[in-house]
Parts: sequence; C-alpha cells; structure tokens
Amino acid sequence: MDLGDRKEILENLKYLISVHDIPKLKNIIIDIHPADMADIIRDLDTPEGDYIFRLMNSREAADVMLELDEVSRDQLIEDLGIDRLSEMVGNMDSDDATDVLSELSKSVAQQVLKRLDKEDRAEVEKLIVHEEDSAGGLMALEFVAVFEDETVDDAIQKIRQKAQEVDQLFYVYAVDHQQRLVGVVPLKKLLLSKRDMHIRDIMNTDVISVTAEKDQEQVANIVRRYDLVAIPVVDDENRLVGKITIDDVLDVLHEEATEDMQIMAGIADDEIPQEMSTLRISRFRLPWLLVAFAGEVGSAFIMRAFEASIQQIVATAFFIPLIMAMGGNSGIQASTIVVRSIALEEGGTTNRWARFFRELRVALLNGFVMSVLIFFMVYAFFSEDPLFGVVIGLSMLVVMVNAALVGAVVPYVLNRFKYDPAIATGPFITTSNDVLGLFIYLSMSLAYLTYLR
Amino acid sequence: MDLGDRKEILENLKYLISVHDIPKLKNIIIDIHPADMADIIRDLDTPEGDYIFRLMNSREAADVMLELDEVSRDQLIEDLGIDRLSEMVGNMDSDDATDVLSELSKSVAQQVLKRLDKEDRAEVEKLIVHEEDSAGGLMALEFVAVFEDETVDDAIQKIRQKAQEVDQLFYVYAVDHQQRLVGVVPLKKLLLSKRDMHIRDIMNTDVISVTAEKDQEQVANIVRRYDLVAIPVVDDENRLVGKITIDDVLDVLHEEATEDMQIMAGIADDEIPQEMSTLRISRFRLPWLLVAFAGEVGSAFIMRAFEASIQQIVATAFFIPLIMAMGGNSGIQASTIVVRSIALEEGGTTNRWARFFRELRVALLNGFVMSVLIFFMVYAFFSEDPLFGVVIGLSMLVVMVNAALVGAVVPYVLNRFKYDPAIATGPFITTSNDVLGLFIYLSMSLAYLTYLR
Repeated sequence: MDLGDRKEILENLKYLISVHDIPKLKNIIIDIHPADMADIIRDLDTPEGDYIFRLMNSREAADVMLELDEVSRDQLIEDLGIDRLSEMVGNMDSDDATDVLSELSKSVAQQVLKRLDKEDRAEVEKLIVHEEDSAGGLMALEFVAVFEDETVDDAIQKIRQKAQEVDQLFYVYAVDHQQRLVGVVPLKKLLLSKRDMHIRDIMNTDVISVTAEKDQEQVANIVRRYDLVAIPVVDDENRLVGKITIDDVLDVLHEEATEDMQIMAGIADDEIPQEMSTLRISRFRLPWLLVAFAGEVGSAFIMRAFEASIQQIVATAFFIPLIMAMGGNSGIQASTIVVRSIALEEGGTTNRWARFFRELRVALLNGFVMSVLIFFMVYAFFSEDPLFGVVIGLSMLVVMVNAALVGAVVPYVLNRFKYDPAIATGPFITTSNDVLGLFIYLSMSLAYLTYLR
Repeated sequence: MDLGDRKEILENLKYLISVHDIPKLKNIIIDIHPADMADIIRDLDTPEGDYIFRLMNSREAADVMLELDEVSRDQLIEDLGIDRLSEMVGNMDSDDATDVLSELSKSVAQQVLKRLDKEDRAEVEKLIVHEEDSAGGLMALEFVAVFEDETVDDAIQKIRQKAQEVDQLFYVYAVDHQQRLVGVVPLKKLLLSKRDMHIRDIMNTDVISVTAEKDQEQVANIVRRYDLVAIPVVDDENRLVGKITIDDVLDVLHEEATEDMQIMAGIADDEIPQEMSTLRISRFRLPWLLVAFAGEVGSAFIMRAFEASIQQIVATAFFIPLIMAMGGNSGIQASTIVVRSIALEEGGTTNRWARFFRELRVALLNGFVMSVLIFFMVYAFFSEDPLFGVVIGLSMLVVMVNAALVGAVVPYVLNRFKYDPAIATGPFITTSNDVLGLFIYLSMSLAYLTYLR
C-alpha cells in the first residue's frame, strides 16, 4: 500500500468513525493487511485508534498489535484492559505471545498468564526461560513433526490438525521415537509423494538445525548461508524443541544492522526513530556525547601542554583539524571493514593476521599519498621551509597508520571479551584516535622546533 | 559447519587429492553443502580447487560457483573453459545464470550463450534486459502458475513437471487466461484441499506483487513488511512475469546494509572484505580520503585567516578539536537516524518536518548540556574570565545545532535528487561540518576578542 492509498483510507476511516458506520468500517478493516493497519492506527488519534481496535476480532487485533512500534503498543496495552489483552495474546503464535508478555510489567504479565488457556500458558512458560537474543528466544512451538516411520498420509493428517495454528508452513520435520530430529520434508515433496510412502524414504537427512542457546546473529547467518526459510531448533540431545521462521530472521538481521549503524553513529541501540520525545532521544544520545566530550577534553589539555611551541609557530595549529580528520577517516575505514567481517563471521582465526597486515599496508600506502599531498600544500601556501612540510606530512602518515591499526585491532579485542565489536566504530575509538593523533602530531612538531629549525 | 570441522575436512581433502583417491573424494564432496564447499575451495590452492571442481557434476559445480566470492569466481571462470562453463550456466536457475553471464566479458558471454539450449537462452535473454537492482533484475522464471479455473490436481501435475527445475517452491500463483495474476495458493492449502477443487475457490486473492521496475530495496522492504517468503513480479498489465525468493531478498538487505555502513565509513560500496589486493583496496578508499582532505584543507586556510586572534589568545586553539568533535558527533547522530528512516521508508512526507524539528530540539538540548559542561571546564582550568567560557560554550551550542540540522536536512535533499542518502553520513558531510564548525567557532572568538575583552 503506498502513501497515497494510505492517506485516502485514513480520511475515509476518520469519516466513518465520526458517523459510527460500523458495518462499512468492518468491511474496510478486513481487507487491510495488519502491517498497513498498524501504520494507519499510528496516524489516527488515540480514541479513533481504540475505536478501530474494538471492531476487530481478537485474532486480527493480535496481528495488528504485533506490527505496532513499541511506544504505540505500550499505549494500546494501557487502554485495552486485561481481558481483551489476554484474549489477543491467546491468539498469537507462541513466540509472539512470549515476546509481548516479557515486555509487560510483572504483575500485568501474571494476570494475563492466568487468563490464558492451559495449553497456551504451558507454551509461554516453556519459551520464556530462553535468552531473548538466542535461538530459543526466537523460536515458536508451532511446527509439525512426524515420526520417520509414519506415512505421507499421516503427515497430511497432522498438518490438517495444526493448519489453523501454523500459519506459515513450508517444511515438516521428521523425528524418531525419542523426539530426536532425523530429517526434513519440504511440502513440495509431500505433495508429490504417494500417500502410503514412509517419511523415512522421502525425507532429506542433511537437516541443518541450531541449538536453543545459539546467538540470534549466528542463527541469522546460518539461515542466510544455507538459503533456508525456516530452521529447526533442538536441545542438547538433538530433540526437536521449536522452529524459527525466516520473517523472524529478517527482523534479526535488520535489527543487528540498524544497531551496528547506530552504535557507529553514537546513538544508543534502542533509539526508535519514531514517536519518541525529545527528552528520551536526548537521554539516549547524551552518554555518547559525554564519552566524546570526556575524551576530547584531553585534547585541550594536550594543546595547553604544547602552548609554547604553538605560540612560536602558530602555523602548527593550522593543520590540527586536517590531520585529526585524516586520522579519523583512516581509522573508521579500517574498523568498519573489520567489524562487518566479524558480524558476518567471514574468515577464521587464520585470516585475522592477514587482515591486520592488509590494513597496515593500505594505511601505509594511502597515508603516503596524503603525506605527499600535504607536503606540497604546505610548501606552496604556508611555509618556505620544506622541512616544515616534511614534518607535517610525516606526522600525517604516522597518525593515519596508527588510527588504522587501532581500528583494525580493537574490534577483535572487544569481540574476544564479549563486547559488541561495533563499538569500535563509534565515538569511543574516534575520540581516542583524535587525542592520540593530536599528541603524535604535536610531539613531532615540537621535535622539529627543538632539533631541526 | 564450524571452523574445526572445516579444517579437518580440508586436511582430509588435501591428502586424498595428493593420492588421487577419486571415489573417496566424490563421496565426501557429495555430502558438503555448496556454501561450505565454496569456503573450502577458497582455502585450497588453485590447482587443488580446480581438481575438486572437475570431480563435481555440473549441477553441483554450478551451485558451488554461485557461492564463491567475486574474486575466486573470476579466477575459476578463467580456468574452466567455455564448454564446462556453459554446462554449469545451463544448470543454474534463470536469475543466477543471468547474473553470471552479465559479469562475463561480452565475447565470453556470447560464446556461453551460444552453447546454451534454446529454452535456457531464451530465459536469459528475457531477464538480462532488466536493471540489475530492480525487481526484474532479481526475479527468476522458475515459478509455477496455474489457471484459476484449473483444479488442485492440475496444479499438482504442473508442480510435478517443474519439480526438478523449481528448487524452492512454497506458493503456486493463479492467473487468468490473459496471464494476469489473480491469486496465490500456499502449498499447505494445496495439500489439504480435495483434488477436484478449483484453484479459484481455494486461492487467496489478496496477493501482494511488485512490478519489474521496482527498486530492489523497496522490494526487500515489502517482503519484510508482509512476512513473505516469495513475491510474484508482474508487468504493467499485471501479467505474471517472474518471482523473487526470500534468499535473494536477504542478500539484498545484507548488501544494502553493508553498503550504507561502508558509505558511512567512507569506503567505496564495492569493497569486498576478502581477497583484495592492497592496491585495489587503497584505490577504493582513496577517493573518500581525498574528499576529506580537500575539505579539511579549507580548515587550514580558515585558521590562517584568524592567525592574529589565535596568536593573541592561544587558548582559543585549545578547544578547536573538542568543539569540532562535538559538532561531528551531533551531526552524525542526526544524519544516521534520518538516513535509516529513509532506507526503511518509515513515515511519509508529513513526518519530515516533525523529524527536522525533533532533531533541532534534541540538538538544542544536548548542545546546551555540553555547553554548560565546557563552560565549567574552561572556567576551572583555562581562564578566569567567565566571559571566555561563555563564548566557548555558546560556540559549541551553535556548532552542534548547525551540524545536527545539516545532518537532518542533507539526506532528504540527496534522496530528492536520487542520490543515496547514506552519503550524508560519510566523509562528505563530516568534513563540511568540520570546516563550517571551525569557521563559526573562530568567528565567535574573534568577536569576543574585538568587542568583549
């Protein structure tokens, strides 16, 4: 649905709400995809949105609720009342129900849980123990498993029983009588096989699975690598415990990419670009600004320490922004490439040193090119002493190489100690490269003043 | 397959190649997923890799070739010879075959095309006309379409005919007799419906499709938004012309996220983190360094223009790195959020002004906090004249707000003129913010010197 359509529907709905034309409203609502409905509700005033919500059955309402952003969802949950909320949660897939419940306050979650039917409650209790960003935290219990000694016909019966519950079904998983995962059967295969064939004889035994503890980013990389649309989750004894569908994997990849970019820009990773108050956004970004501030304050002290030499040749100061910026650029180029490689798990340990030395060579080469450029610039416009240009150029080379090495090494160190390597592309490293670069530059100019002039 | 396994297999293969144990080699090869095989071949020496390649049948070899990175693939194509290459291309899905052919030199592509069978050649010729980054450039012709007045049984027959060709099949598309797309039937529905039912009666008519011209990033957003695993592609008359599967969408999202991050870091968007020579990487990064250099050279001239005032109070220079860094951080925070919102198509035109004013408010608030901090820092450690601290603080506020506004506006302007908004997070804007910030800061200090001291 494009923006024009959405605007038109929005106007139409507003009018129909104002004249309370419930039959027509219901007719429109039923044709709108939950993802579009969520956008529409965000654009409506709260009472209008609540009005629409009350017209939906709890299955529809649940689907829409899952598409809302966090802020609108919190608002809605507040307005809904426990009974309606419980009904909606009962209509969600087990993984979504668990996510919603884990976002609620403990007391509200308890009340909702009490109102769920026994089976739904058991499912949520089974899932809620897993870490949010693990395979267990992503998986749903809505899958179809058949015994390997059952027939195609048995499998179809099982699918029929679960048809309502399992919305997106592409594979059936084959297990032995200890519930251990032994194979996978795509629906295509099921459709083309004779009804009395055994699952064992048509299943693919090369089944790729993950354990419940697996980190969600690794799960996403596996799904992407092997072109899967769903992946089964097993416990330590290889017993089938759940499945993850590709839409959740897409969300993970999107989340991780956004997170990396936000960390890179010095924004807390949970800043939502929509619907946040100035104060909240400010609070999300301020810590990074403070990190940068604390670091850069160092630069003011360093410069004061070199006050005498700056006073002697003010021209030394002219090149500070240039040299720091080039160091910053060289560092961020190196760290971004390394961070992205780590995120995508490209290459093994053996490749680390190769990458380090490659970054070193690139920094040396590019640093040299820039040094030559700045030498000529300084000589042409700023100082007739070629030695001054050499000092500036040499400083730039050292600063750029230093920044690149810091940028190439720090992500691995962070990763080793279980921190997000993306931090290395953010203000933290940029700032320390700034301060270090400034120190290197001023020390070298001081040496020039003292010994060479 | 984890790294340990891979290493073991690698050793084993090397040994078996050295003793020419072809039966055992074939046995191992058949069990390895193409994605893993590609990694193994990358780790082998070229003659060993070529040896393995010759043992695979052309279907297997084609699958592995598609998983190789660009550099290894080019090498392989060179070693293969036209006949073998043509055989492999003939075994690929139409979209992959087209991609590979479009990467070849024109004369080689012509030779391969001549060797393909008539049907395959026709498919490639149909696909190659589309822009690489459009829905047409992503789509494959391996889909199953049935007429809406056919039965479930007819559909199953068609699937059977295409079973070999269509590897990942999850939906069947329903068309009318003018080939216009009218509905979609998930395989689950087909499996649970009586064989004599008409497609018309079981199909879902709310089918989401895209036209062949649609930009690939928009296609990816639609697939993500509506939780699809495949999306049909239609022409201007709504006639079904192809389908895009989720694995290609995942690759697009991954590509776009990497691209945005690389642009953000000032790296050309086609730098591949693997297997590139120092010279090539250097050439990819140098242009951005030159952009930054050219811009920052301006800062040296600006500083010279203010030489007199800097000489008078050297302390003015002390805060240059700090103020520029804070402006840089404030700008990148604003631009990253705006760029990401544009990429995800969040919010409409109406939201742009809201976002602009929100960034203004956030920058004012955070700028104010930082100004107060720097005021106290300056007063405590650098100057007893509180007015000097006020000037520094005020400059910082102006520089931060200015950078945030540039960061919030430029992505929209770039997008408007069909440039990638992500450019606004890269060296281009960082540099101009640096120079602009420096000018603002020095002008304000000069005013202080002239009028207030």
